[in-house]
Amino acid sequence: MVQFSEKAHYNPALMSGFPFSNTPLNAPLEETVVIVGVGLIGGSLAAAIRQRGVARRVIGVGRNASRLESARQAKLIDDVSTDLVEAARSASLIVFCTPVDKIVEQVRQVVTGLNSSEKRATHSGTSKRKPGAEKLLLTDAGSVKGAICHPLADVTNFIGSHPIAGSHRQGFEAADPNLYQGKVCVLTPLDSADRNHLIRLEKFWSAVGMKTVSMSPEEHDAALAMTSHLPHVVASALAATLTPDKVPFVGSGFRTTTRIAAGDPDLWTQILLNNVNDIVSGIEDVQHRLESFHLALKLGNTEVLKQLLEEGKEARERVEKE
Amino acid sequence: MVQFSEKAHYNPALMSGFPFSNTPLNAPLEETVVIVGVGLIGGSLAAAIRQRGVARRVIGVGRNASRLESARQAKLIDDVSTDLVEAARSASLIVFCTPVDKIVEQVRQVVTGLNSSEKRATHSGTSKRKPGAEKLLLTDAGSVKGAICHPLADVTNFIGSHPIAGSHRQGFEAADPNLYQGKVCVLTPLDSADRNHLIRLEKFWSAVGMKTVSMSPEEHDAALAMTSHLPHVVASALAATLTPDKVPFVGSGFRTTTRIAAGDPDLWTQILLNNVNDIVSGIEDVQHRLESFHLALKLGNTEVLKQLLEEGKEARERVEKE
Repeated sequence: MVQFSEKAHYNPALMSGFPFSNTPLNAPLEETVVIVGVGLIGGSLAAAIRQRGVARRVIGVGRNASRLESARQAKLIDDVSTDLVEAARSASLIVFCTPVDKIVEQVRQVVTGLNSSEKRATHSGTSKRKPGAEKLLLTDAGSVKGAICHPLADVTNFIGSHPIAGSHRQGFEAADPNLYQGKVCVLTPLDSADRNHLIRLEKFWSAVGMKTVSMSPEEHDAALAMTSHLPHVVASALAATLTPDKVPFVGSGFRTTTRIAAGDPDLWTQILLNNVNDIVSGIEDVQHRLESFHLALKLGNTEVLKQLLEEGKEARERVEKE
Repeated sequence: MVQFSEKAHYNPALMSGFPFSNTPLNAPLEETVVIVGVGLIGGSLAAAIRQRGVARRVIGVGRNASRLESARQAKLIDDVSTDLVEAARSASLIVFCTPVDKIVEQVRQVVTGLNSSEKRATHSGTSKRKPGAEKLLLTDAGSVKGAICHPLADVTNFIGSHPIAGSHRQGFEAADPNLYQGKVCVLTPLDSADRNHLIRLEKFWSAVGMKTVSMSPEEHDAALAMTSHLPHVVASALAATLTPDKVPFVGSGFRTTTRIAAGDPDLWTQILLNNVNDIVSGIEDVQHRLESFHLALKLGNTEVLKQLLEEGKEARERVEKE
């Protein structure tokens, strides 16, 4: 049974107006949050952090300096950097909002970079990270967890996160400070995770408005295979059956059912390849259901057909109303 | 190549305010439209007819007198009747907005009822349908056409229609006078159809705001199998794979992809059973695509997987933006 954390402790008094710079009622949870990848996900997180006063400062990191500067001018972030390690030096929390196949190498880059600068600092008697500074915590927003958390098992200050929220829109221009509001964030600490790190991370996601839940990376991936990855495969397969001559006869049913098929093929290739077994098993489930429809239609079996449709309707209705 | 009629000749001057009773700029196209089945589809049609002044009078026919009376009070219809044949006597146009498995028998009921009352009238020297009254035209709004139009081939004043518009909402309470605005209505005249009837029906659907196109019932059913019926099967099959324990991890992707699975199983059983061959062939297309995903995932074939996703995205993007 899934146990959710207490109701997200956001303060409605902090919710009005965006962007805003009111003094929050409580001291910020984090000193400096570095967000790596300022697209829809990272940009919305930055917006939520600023709107709710969750951190004193938000730094956006990316490769494209002019895009970052635009995000800063849009008041999503306080400062920008194209140098991940440099930005990491001033961070209390780093959230990797980059494609799932980039996260492991970027975390490694930070760990290696900080270690080598600390060695140099020890040698020269200076340090970029002040002694006594808030301990650095690392997390991500990737939608697969096993393929990220296990390779990083030795990085004891990394705990995987997956804030389950999104949009078919892309880029920081579509950032929404309320994207995460009331949604679920799954945390996937390994058995070796520091309990204090986990509590701090739960507080962070709660502060941006989310309900948090902890489970193993495997449990996460099995659940998300069915709720997110499989729907993407199915929507894509369905969309591809439509020949151009039939486009004029498309109604709202086809549109909604295939909407997510327009997602970025590069991003989704990596997501699917990083959760193969659970998705393969989900595809088989759908194939079996389709086979039942196929048979019931060929036999003209009204009762079976209606039963199949009833089951689909019941399952759909378990999902809260839109 | 599909040829659409001229741009729908609706008059924007008639568009403001609903309900309204302004004098239309032109005389109404129809004297009295009888709408059989005043749910979302029939109610929206009634609303559009009244808003645009397409007919002098709209009569709603149904089994439930109190529901009909509520629809009248909501100003969707001018008058109500639970007696189909009685209402048909005063109609210039009857639109059957009932479930697809009811339409043939209801059309027969009207034809038989009017014939027998005309025989009685001839015998007694009186007639309910005045001589010289506008010729009665019959059509429907069903989403399958072969199974409706062919059994009614002898009813020379019936031509099938399918206004491609809908909503996951149900009932006349959700009726929307703009539901049909800018959407496509397929007309499926048999070869024997009267050219004047067809022109009159095209004018009617154009007047409620639709683009009209004519094709055979078979062409219609082949197209709609792919754009509407197959998506329903696929959404249902996908929805049914979700076990209750995974509901908390559902995001917007699953929600949109399965939304139409909540449709009425009785209605959809009949739609599917009345278009078996085209839907079965569509299911096979989807199964083949899913099999390709399955194989690419098991082999870890990045290139094939990306290609499959690209094809889905391209097909989706051919459908105009939402």
